[in-house]
Amino acid sequence: MAANKTIQKTLIPKENFSEWYDNVLLEAKIVDDRYPVKGFTVYTGWGFSIVKRIISMLEEKLDSSGHEPMQFPVIIPEDAFQKEEDHIKGFSGEVFWITHAGENELERRLVLRPTSETAIYPMFKMWIRSHADLPLLMNQTCNVYRYETKATRPLYRGREFLWNEGHTAHATYNEAEEQIRTAIRIYSEVYDSLSLNYIKLRRPDFDKFAGADYSVAFDAWNPDGKSNQIGTVHQLGNNFAKAFEMTYENEDGKQELCTNTCYGMGFGRTLACLISQHGDDHGLILPPIVAPKQVVIIPIPVKGKEQISKEYAKLIYHNLTSNNIRTVLDEDDRLRPGEKFYKWEMNGVPIRIEIGPREAESKTVTFVRRDTFKKSKADLVNLVDTVHELFKSINQTLNERSKKIMNERMATAYTLDELKEFMDQRKLVRINWCGNKGCAEALKDKVSGEIRGTLWLDLEEPTDNCILCENSAKYIAYVSRTY
Amino acid sequence: MAANKTIQKTLIPKENFSEWYDNVLLEAKIVDDRYPVKGFTVYTGWGFSIVKRIISMLEEKLDSSGHEPMQFPVIIPEDAFQKEEDHIKGFSGEVFWITHAGENELERRLVLRPTSETAIYPMFKMWIRSHADLPLLMNQTCNVYRYETKATRPLYRGREFLWNEGHTAHATYNEAEEQIRTAIRIYSEVYDSLSLNYIKLRRPDFDKFAGADYSVAFDAWNPDGKSNQIGTVHQLGNNFAKAFEMTYENEDGKQELCTNTCYGMGFGRTLACLISQHGDDHGLILPPIVAPKQVVIIPIPVKGKEQISKEYAKLIYHNLTSNNIRTVLDEDDRLRPGEKFYKWEMNGVPIRIEIGPREAESKTVTFVRRDTFKKSKADLVNLVDTVHELFKSINQTLNERSKKIMNERMATAYTLDELKEFMDQRKLVRINWCGNKGCAEALKDKVSGEIRGTLWLDLEEPTDNCILCENSAKYIAYVSRTY
Repeated sequence: MAANKTIQKTLIPKENFSEWYDNVLLEAKIVDDRYPVKGFTVYTGWGFSIVKRIISMLEEKLDSSGHEPMQFPVIIPEDAFQKEEDHIKGFSGEVFWITHAGENELERRLVLRPTSETAIYPMFKMWIRSHADLPLLMNQTCNVYRYETKATRPLYRGREFLWNEGHTAHATYNEAEEQIRTAIRIYSEVYDSLSLNYIKLRRPDFDKFAGADYSVAFDAWNPDGKSNQIGTVHQLGNNFAKAFEMTYENEDGKQELCTNTCYGMGFGRTLACLISQHGDDHGLILPPIVAPKQVVIIPIPVKGKEQISKEYAKLIYHNLTSNNIRTVLDEDDRLRPGEKFYKWEMNGVPIRIEIGPREAESKTVTFVRRDTFKKSKADLVNLVDTVHELFKSINQTLNERSKKIMNERMATAYTLDELKEFMDQRKLVRINWCGNKGCAEALKDKVSGEIRGTLWLDLEEPTDNCILCENSAKYIAYVSRTY
Repeated sequence: MAANKTIQKTLIPKENFSEWYDNVLLEAKIVDDRYPVKGFTVYTGWGFSIVKRIISMLEEKLDSSGHEPMQFPVIIPEDAFQKEEDHIKGFSGEVFWITHAGENELERRLVLRPTSETAIYPMFKMWIRSHADLPLLMNQTCNVYRYETKATRPLYRGREFLWNEGHTAHATYNEAEEQIRTAIRIYSEVYDSLSLNYIKLRRPDFDKFAGADYSVAFDAWNPDGKSNQIGTVHQLGNNFAKAFEMTYENEDGKQELCTNTCYGMGFGRTLACLISQHGDDHGLILPPIVAPKQVVIIPIPVKGKEQISKEYAKLIYHNLTSNNIRTVLDEDDRLRPGEKFYKWEMNGVPIRIEIGPREAESKTVTFVRRDTFKKSKADLVNLVDTVHELFKSINQTLNERSKKIMNERMATAYTLDELKEFMDQRKLVRINWCGNKGCAEALKDKVSGEIRGTLWLDLEEPTDNCILCENSAKYIAYVSRTY
């Protein structure tokens, strides 16, 4: 065995989440956080291959629901950026400024987009003339830039993040409301196909997107108890339409203001969620739909019978790939089978196939599932069907496991002491809340979490008075730590 | 007919190239150049759908030839950017600088990447330990930023441009040379599948990539006679390896410098090439492989028989889409058939199917090819096969047409007067050249073109003395105007 190849390493238990997470990122080639500017991360091969599949899934759904794919410039001129009052208040503290080009100072400073409303709406204004131009739906996959001052963690919180943003304009508020439901459905479909678990919360008014009427967010659970916001959907009402004079001629020939919505899915955070909800002590566990390799075949050498295993492994490889199953045949002679197991388990490949002379002679296949490590056998003739059944079953297990953990982490607190205790246990806690900002701020001071919002659509009736002021409660609110 | 819908417009002949080009960009929704910062362009729906398909084609070929997909930050710290002497000389005059974030001045200025060598190599240095880590091949699709001072033209020359860049590290110079041939083969395959025509030139030494040993470029012909550089491939030798201390341990345990190559395909310029080489007075003509819609079905209403046409059109639509042919059925009742023809011709959809009661009753299909406007008929049972045959034939026609024009534009000049005349005729001109920079500069002063290089691999023997100094010539060089 060559000395320069990976040798068996000690696994870090997932219980030590931070250490485990950093180790998986590097070992499985997800990202490399050693780029020489703080808060900026390099997506490496395996990680970016997963991300590209998530992007394609989302883009396909957006395309087929009428969103035109576009690409806007990364820079926004200062004057456009400052048009919507609440928006600029929310973002001005955290944007990067381009001030020079070559040796020259620019006449107008340019903002590196923190989000694209103020880049997009001046163009929407030109494109929208009459009601026949509406609805206008677009989406773009791009990076946005925010000068985060909080501690950064790769994929969860950085200064550059990769997302898809959708932007829409509608003739009426009701049509925009319908669009919000469509966007939430599309995002849910993507997350669900990755077996992720989350709750959909309407954010409190003081925590909504800068410039929005209201915001809905997807909060996924995370092993360390912090909520991971993997997507958001915003009703913008007429706020931006007023600032950017986005009007249309209605059927009676009158000018009316448009209503806008926008939404974003963060691919870094979605990837972080995938890693953190499904992973185990051995590393990643990938849902087959986004696994760059779905099956790894490992020939098990038995002295004198190497050739028969190798040939049979090739036959299986050919069978799988010709059925569009992404397969890798690991024939690296420098590694022992155990080292290969370690490597592909760390990478989260859903199914391992072990091939020895016994399998070759009996024309059978031995499978090991990454999620449960359960072994099973099938006849060669059933190879492809069995793989597809295993994929289905793996998805189901991942989803059930993740849902079970999320449910175990939910709790309801009726007193501040209970709330504190639950927060120490890293739970997602339901409380009764009067709805006032003062109480939300008091809560933030008293416990190590904050009010994240109220369930979207499933209205929950309060069961007690406000946990803080003890006046009558309006909502069941959800409290957690957050990234 | 609703007044707010597009009505038949006057077509601009392609002869008036600039006006024609700007019109096609807007009418076919390729890009919108009215973004409020000069040199920055918005890719709109149809244009970006085409680009996405070109990107996928290239990425697939790069992936399957061992390039890991990655994504590096858009910003480069000033110190890394300045490490390779020639590189910084070449680029420092044309980069955007980020100097502030929020209210603060940054301690270290950041460059918006004009290309990514200096972002990538500090990481390569960490990843490369031994010969077993080589070759290292990566690619990323991203935007780069250059503060162009020349006149900009959308897709040809802007301050933000979308490309895919490949970066590699090798143990030996020879292996890097082999990689250059691989990259050129991959790029050629993409361009060829788009029926584009170009020549591959080794750039003169004074015009190579800043920091390279030598550069090879794909120069495509353009209707206005300017060369359109759609891709470049660079042999970097040890230049960056020295600057960034990229070394590996060889099999004898000694440290050696890596050799690097890099290459870039500009998607804006490739799209511009597609538009400009294939388009005609009616607008775009798209190669089927990248057409967002490959077939448009237009029902021709005949009074009293609208229903039968519509139902037959739906049947055909279903047949095509279920065979993975990207099809649109244009049932917009507000437009007359002629207006629909105009619109889909402008968009370059390769095949139009016209459906009237006659077709419905005889179970036949009438096709009109976008490239030649030739009509043909087929029985319904042969629908899918006929479409595939037409696609093939369209590719062939586009390629032959483009090649014929390129060949007609080639000329050989033996005197400066001839050269001037050919340049006025917007030709691509072969000359005998001694190889000296002085003569190249003199040429640039005397005619409205410049030396672009010598044919890559096909060595051409000089046929006369240098057209300028009249000393003996070393090369046949190619002269043209350029973007």
